[in-house]
Amino acid sequence: MLKNIARVQMSTRSFTSAVSKAFTEGAALDASKLEINPNAAPSTPLPNDQLVFGQTFTDHMLTVEWNKGKGWSNPVIKPYGPLVLDPSACVFHYAFELFEGLKAYRTPDNKIAMFRPDMNMKRMNKSAARICLPTFDNEELIKLIGKLIEQDKHLVPEGQGYSLYLRPTMIGTTAGLGVSTPDKALLFVICSPVGPYYKTGFKAVRLEATDYATRAWPGGVGDKKLGANYAPCILPQLDAASRGYQQNLWLFGPEKNITEVGTMNVFFAFRDSKTGKNELVTAPLDGTILEGVTRDSVLALARENLDPKEWDINERYYTINEVKERAAKGELLEAFGSGTAAVVSPIKEIGWEGQDINVPLLPGEQSGPLTKQVAQWIADIQYGRTKHGNWSQIVADLN
Amino acid sequence: MLKNIARVQMSTRSFTSAVSKAFTEGAALDASKLEINPNAAPSTPLPNDQLVFGQTFTDHMLTVEWNKGKGWSNPVIKPYGPLVLDPSACVFHYAFELFEGLKAYRTPDNKIAMFRPDMNMKRMNKSAARICLPTFDNEELIKLIGKLIEQDKHLVPEGQGYSLYLRPTMIGTTAGLGVSTPDKALLFVICSPVGPYYKTGFKAVRLEATDYATRAWPGGVGDKKLGANYAPCILPQLDAASRGYQQNLWLFGPEKNITEVGTMNVFFAFRDSKTGKNELVTAPLDGTILEGVTRDSVLALARENLDPKEWDINERYYTINEVKERAAKGELLEAFGSGTAAVVSPIKEIGWEGQDINVPLLPGEQSGPLTKQVAQWIADIQYGRTKHGNWSQIVADLN
Repeated sequence: MLKNIARVQMSTRSFTSAVSKAFTEGAALDASKLEINPNAAPSTPLPNDQLVFGQTFTDHMLTVEWNKGKGWSNPVIKPYGPLVLDPSACVFHYAFELFEGLKAYRTPDNKIAMFRPDMNMKRMNKSAARICLPTFDNEELIKLIGKLIEQDKHLVPEGQGYSLYLRPTMIGTTAGLGVSTPDKALLFVICSPVGPYYKTGFKAVRLEATDYATRAWPGGVGDKKLGANYAPCILPQLDAASRGYQQNLWLFGPEKNITEVGTMNVFFAFRDSKTGKNELVTAPLDGTILEGVTRDSVLALARENLDPKEWDINERYYTINEVKERAAKGELLEAFGSGTAAVVSPIKEIGWEGQDINVPLLPGEQSGPLTKQVAQWIADIQYGRTKHGNWSQIVADLN
Repeated sequence: MLKNIARVQMSTRSFTSAVSKAFTEGAALDASKLEINPNAAPSTPLPNDQLVFGQTFTDHMLTVEWNKGKGWSNPVIKPYGPLVLDPSACVFHYAFELFEGLKAYRTPDNKIAMFRPDMNMKRMNKSAARICLPTFDNEELIKLIGKLIEQDKHLVPEGQGYSLYLRPTMIGTTAGLGVSTPDKALLFVICSPVGPYYKTGFKAVRLEATDYATRAWPGGVGDKKLGANYAPCILPQLDAASRGYQQNLWLFGPEKNITEVGTMNVFFAFRDSKTGKNELVTAPLDGTILEGVTRDSVLALARENLDPKEWDINERYYTINEVKERAAKGELLEAFGSGTAAVVSPIKEIGWEGQDINVPLLPGEQSGPLTKQVAQWIADIQYGRTKHGNWSQIVADLN
C-alpha cells in the first residue's frame, strides 16, 4: 500500500510537468479585462428562512472562455442564464468538469469576506491539470469572484450561519466525440445565498460504514474535486438511507481504513484510557482523500488551540475496527464530518457489520464539546470576529 | 481480492432492486408517441474521405425528457442543435452522465442494420441505474433510434469500413447544487457518419503498461459506460504519448493484472510451447472491466469458429509479467484491443519497466492472423454478408 501511494505521488509530479507545458500557450486569465453586462432587473433578496442550499442564485454569473490557441478570453459578468452547448460537447460525454465550493460572509463592519479562497483556487488548478483542462492565476480568479460578489452584494444574506455560497466550475466544451484533450473550455462562477446547514442548531447524523462500494483508489482522482467523484456515490447513499443511515462512511482496502464521509472529510477523537491523553485523527492526504479546506482549517486550529499535553493531532490511517474496539472500551469521544457546506457535521451512530457503534454527544445536545468548539473557532474567523492570518479576505465593502 | 469482487457483485444486485423501485413511477418510454420536427434544410453527404470520427453529425437528433413524477415525455426527433441548460444543472457539477456507442451499416440489399443494439441498450440501462438516472424499455429506444436513422438515411455512408456511429447519451438536468438523485434527465441520440478507424488498413499500436494510474477498481464504476471513467484517463495517455506510446495498457493491483487498453477491452493470444495448444485470453467481467459488445462478440465468434482442439478461449486473470515471460519464451502470438470505434486494434509493442515487449505481426503487415480473422468475422456480420442470429438488426430500408 505505501509503495503504491509513493508511486501515485510520483506520477502526479510527472503529470504536472507534462500539463504545464501543454497549457501555457495563449493569453493568461486577466481580471483587468473584465467586461460587465449588468442585469437590468435586479432581484430583491429572499427572506433568510426561504434560503435552501444551492436552489436560488444571484442576478449575475461570471464566465470566461478558453481555447487552446488563444488562451483565456476576456472575463464577463452577465445576467445569470443558461449555457448553450453542442450536444457533442465533451462535458456531456467524458465528464470534463470540475468545481469548487467556498463561501463569502458579511463581517461586523459591513464588509464581505471570503474564507481562504487561495486554498480553493490552488485545488481548482490541481483538479484542472488532472483532467487536461486549462490552469489559471489564482489571484486573478479571486479578484474576479470579488467583482461578482460586489455586483450582487445586496444578495449576500446577513446573520450568523448565513452566507453566499460560491460555485466556481470549469467544463470542457469541445464539440466532437473523440476522447482527447479539450481544446475549448468554459470557466464560470455562480452564487447561491445560503442559510445554516442545520436550521435549528446541529443535527447529528447516522452513518453506514461502507466497504462494498469504494469512493476512491490509489492512482485514481479521489483527491480532486471532479464531477466524476460524485454521481457514483449517490446509489450507495440511497442504499444506506433505505436502512436508516443518512450518509456513507467510506472504507478502503482489506484493512477497512476510514477515508471520508458522504462528501466530507471526517475526524474522530479518542481518549487513551491508560495515559488519559486525547487524540484527534483524520486520514492522511495519500491521493484518495479530498484536500478539504475545512479539513486543513480544523487541523490548523486544533494544533494552535488544543493543549499538546492533552491532545495529539494526527493524520494517520485508522480503521473501522479501531473505532469499534475503542468505542467498546469507552475511548471514542467524538466524530464529525468537515466540509464547506456544513462546516462541521456531528456523527452520532455508525452502522457496521449489523451493529451500531454509538458516538457520545453532550447530554441533551446534538454534538460533542470538541465538535462545537471547532465550529465556533471557524465561524468566528469566517464572520470576521477573530483575525487569523489571511484566512478571511475582504472582497467587497458595503459601506 | 476474490472476496471483494463477490461483495461488489452482490451489492450491484442490491442496488438494482433499490433503484427499480425508485424509477418506475410515471410514463414509460414509448416509441409510438414520437413527434417528428423535420430539418427544413437537409444536408448533402460529405465525401467519404472527409469523414472524421465524431466530428460531423447528421441533420437530426432524438431527445426525450424525463422527470421524476411524470416519467418519460414524448420522444422528439428534431434538427440537430444545441442543448440549453441551467449552469447549476447536475450534469455540469456531479457527472450525472452516461453514453453508448454503436453503429449502423448499409447491407448488400440496400437496407440499414444496427449491430447488436440490444446489448448496448442493456448496458445503457445498467449505467443509468448505477448513477440514479432513469431506466427505459430497450426495445422502445431501439425503435426510436431506427426512426432517427430513417430520418437521416441519406447520410449513412456506403462502403466497406463506413458506417453511421450512433451516440445515445443520458444526462441529469436538475438545476441546483445539492448532491442528490436527479429528478430531471434528458436522453438524446446524435449520429455521426464515420469511416474506417484505420484509413489504410490496420495500424498496429504501441502501448505503455500503466500501473501508476488506475482506471477502475472493485466497488467502483469501471464496468459502466459513465462519463466519469473517461476524463481521468486522458492525462496518463498524454504521459504515455510523451514517451512514444499511443495508449495505456491499464494494469490493476499488486499482481499487475491486465485489464483494458485505452478505451477498449484487450485480448492476448498465447501458444503453450509444451502442448502446442493456443489460448485466446481476456480479463473476466469482475466489475472493473467494461462489458464490451465487441468483446462479447469476439469471445462468441472465437468459441464458434476456432477448433477447440487447437484453441482454449478463456476469460481469466493474467498479468503483464505473464505476457513478458511468455513473449521471452516465444509463446506470445498476438494482442489486440476490441471496441466499437476500431472493432479490433492490433498491438505491436508494450512498454513495461523500461523495455518493450514485442508482439508478433504477420510479415510486412500490421496485424497478426487471428486479429485479421476476427475483424473479418465481425465485419461480415455487421455489413450483412453473414447471418449470425439476431446480431444484425434491420432498422431502415432504402429501397
